Amino acid sequence: MKKNIFYAQSGGVTPVINATAAGLIDYVSRNKASFGKLFVGKNGIAGALNEELIDISKEKSSELRKLVHTPGGAFGSCRIKLQDPVKNEKEFRRILEVFKAHNIGYFFYNGGGDSQDTTLKISNYCKANNYDVTCIGLPKTIDNDLPVTDNCPGFGSVAKYIATSTLEASLDVASMANSSTKVFILEVMGRHAGWLAASAGVIKENKSMPPHLILLPEVIFDEKKFLQETKTIVKNYGYCVIVASEGIKNKKNQFIASSTSKDSFGHAHLGGVAPKLANIISNKLSYKVHWAVADYLQRAARHLASSVDVKQAYAIGFKALYYAKKGVNGVMLTIKKQKAKTYKWEIKYTKLQNVANFEKELPKSFITKDGFGITSICKNYIKNLISGEDFPPYKNGVPVYAKLKLPLVKKKLKKFKVSL
Amino acid sequence: MKKNIFYAQSGGVTPVINATAAGLIDYVSRNKASFGKLFVGKNGIAGALNEELIDISKEKSSELRKLVHTPGGAFGSCRIKLQDPVKNEKEFRRILEVFKAHNIGYFFYNGGGDSQDTTLKISNYCKANNYDVTCIGLPKTIDNDLPVTDNCPGFGSVAKYIATSTLEASLDVASMANSSTKVFILEVMGRHAGWLAASAGVIKENKSMPPHLILLPEVIFDEKKFLQETKTIVKNYGYCVIVASEGIKNKKNQFIASSTSKDSFGHAHLGGVAPKLANIISNKLSYKVHWAVADYLQRAARHLASSVDVKQAYAIGFKALYYAKKGVNGVMLTIKKQKAKTYKWEIKYTKLQNVANFEKELPKSFITKDGFGITSICKNYIKNLISGEDFPPYKNGVPVYAKLKLPLVKKKLKKFKVSL
Repeated sequence: MKKNIFYAQSGGVTPVINATAAGLIDYVSRNKASFGKLFVGKNGIAGALNEELIDISKEKSSELRKLVHTPGGAFGSCRIKLQDPVKNEKEFRRILEVFKAHNIGYFFYNGGGDSQDTTLKISNYCKANNYDVTCIGLPKTIDNDLPVTDNCPGFGSVAKYIATSTLEASLDVASMANSSTKVFILEVMGRHAGWLAASAGVIKENKSMPPHLILLPEVIFDEKKFLQETKTIVKNYGYCVIVASEGIKNKKNQFIASSTSKDSFGHAHLGGVAPKLANIISNKLSYKVHWAVADYLQRAARHLASSVDVKQAYAIGFKALYYAKKGVNGVMLTIKKQKAKTYKWEIKYTKLQNVANFEKELPKSFITKDGFGITSICKNYIKNLISGEDFPPYKNGVPVYAKLKLPLVKKKLKKFKVSL
Repeated sequence: MKKNIFYAQSGGVTPVINATAAGLIDYVSRNKASFGKLFVGKNGIAGALNEELIDISKEKSSELRKLVHTPGGAFGSCRIKLQDPVKNEKEFRRILEVFKAHNIGYFFYNGGGDSQDTTLKISNYCKANNYDVTCIGLPKTIDNDLPVTDNCPGFGSVAKYIATSTLEASLDVASMANSSTKVFILEVMGRHAGWLAASAGVIKENKSMPPHLILLPEVIFDEKKFLQETKTIVKNYGYCVIVASEGIKNKKNQFIASSTSKDSFGHAHLGGVAPKLANIISNKLSYKVHWAVADYLQRAARHLASSVDVKQAYAIGFKALYYAKKGVNGVMLTIKKQKAKTYKWEIKYTKLQNVANFEKELPKSFITKDGFGITSICKNYIKNLISGEDFPPYKNGVPVYAKLKLPLVKKKLKKFKVSL
């Protein structure tokens, strides 16, 4: 009997995570002889815990075709981190029970570092309990902080959004600087790694051009040096554009935008660096400051996706089943740059152990000596990933995105109380 | 001897104000027999006061052709409000002196309500001093708050950006709501008029769909009612998307995002409604909240311009000289919807007296009874204006925008100290 597939989306969503789902769906529909049904977890791994399995075959194919250009997580995502099965086996027992009940032979979990940890734990637990299931992690994170893979699906599109938005907002502040706003601050995502803030740097061709200052979590925030630089830049060029990562910290290792709230992974919930910096500049230098916080706008901006990113995200989904069919198991798929003059890439894989719970920071060679900019190595790396446009279709002036019904498979088990 | 033209950009810039400049440049180049040189004020009216006139003929034509798709104010804008010439004649005397020295016979000022007031004052002053100059105001404001004209160039593109961004961010929060963020707040521009916040409403097809709450400056902010609605929406639909205008006020007529700083027009410098609302919801309802402040990102987002808006902005510039040639004077150009089944429009004009210093709010018929949404009349109005895409060209993953050199005409007068 053919084994069924369980796929789920996890963690913060991206403009292209649904493209990975689209790749997976396409591979299954072309290889019906090898696979059973494709079930998708409603709200990530919560779908397995709650036995809420979406039956893809009951969705309209016209809507499924829109997944490749639809942002967000079309099936719901989650911020649930499974505990160590040695300490708390309950959830793992339940997942195994659901896998058995629905004849799941393939598990694909689409997420970042925390989600790869979940995939690894489930893989180990099933193995220890003699249940045969192929477990493959599919990378996804706008933060681009997964190791081994050259880059992560999701990053390229958000980087393109940040580079474009910085370019555009810079033209705005440059027009106004003579008699009004002199400083503009854009806050972008990135808790511990500055990949996204760095991406604004691709538009800078010389010292006078924006972004004048990039604030990275990899570089300690020194208020005095920051104010000095801002003042010099305004004096020299008339205005100053700053791109700040939400995760910048001072030398006491405190977040500049400190907050007491934390998400369920135990990460501090940040946001608000831009207004804090604006306040510092306004008080100490008396410049008029404008600031923007892109937040979900950056993470959902499918209208400005990079075509390289869309292709890679799709390929990750497509190749997941290709490799599973070949017997590959216990890995996360990776994107690897090929040796070539122009940018070419391929989908490879690495053991889950190599990637779970590890955050890849910007290498030192990617950051300029003064700590406020990116080097040409970094620029070239990012330029490849933001390359090409992949516009969604529009109707009545706005993009047309997939509207799924998310019909659930009939439950076979008793209700389970998720205590996470 | 043919008279020269003086054109300048004023107030907050837009994604399409340079399209108006492009229309003007094209008309002049096709009608060289009728007009002298085209000079553009560096930094708006400050260019006249400082005798800083940009000589368009010395710019590369390949760069000038990019103006139609370049955001920001390519020649610099300003926030300078001329005083009453009866009280303070100095600046007017100077402008007249500069107009005479450079043989200016046409003055086109491209701005919002305050700028139309400047155009009117200069027109009256020149007339009173027997200097013959055609003065025409060219509308521009993302706030869409100018009277008489059906709409303002700049609004359609920003409205398209807000509608699209709200749609996309809503898909993001909907994916996360089960175990994480339940409320998302987007703060948009609009000091006294809610046109921009309203524009998010075009994506809503039924009550369950986002944006669930639109907070308009035309409707008094009632915290209790707001919290009640938010709670009900989260209970019913799992998540709540809120679009808030920066200018919302409480029943004491205080801005929710109050601030002590003011710009030179005497307007309070706002920004920060979203984090304030997030704080209220987080404290009173204990939901996890995310918030974004679009600020200049919305105002500069040429990458997402509406093609209707670009065409109208261009036509305003083109028709400015067409009407000037016909002897029209002392007016602001307007956009008028034609009686037709599909949306058609034409460029007309109205006396400057009718538009200076007047802010057009959202009509009551555009707002739903509960005060949190827009009616179908409003939807249809906005849908026309956000219609069609007009993507800029891209290179290396980012849009290609005009890079001007802004060469100045040789000064003929003594230096003038601008005291504004």
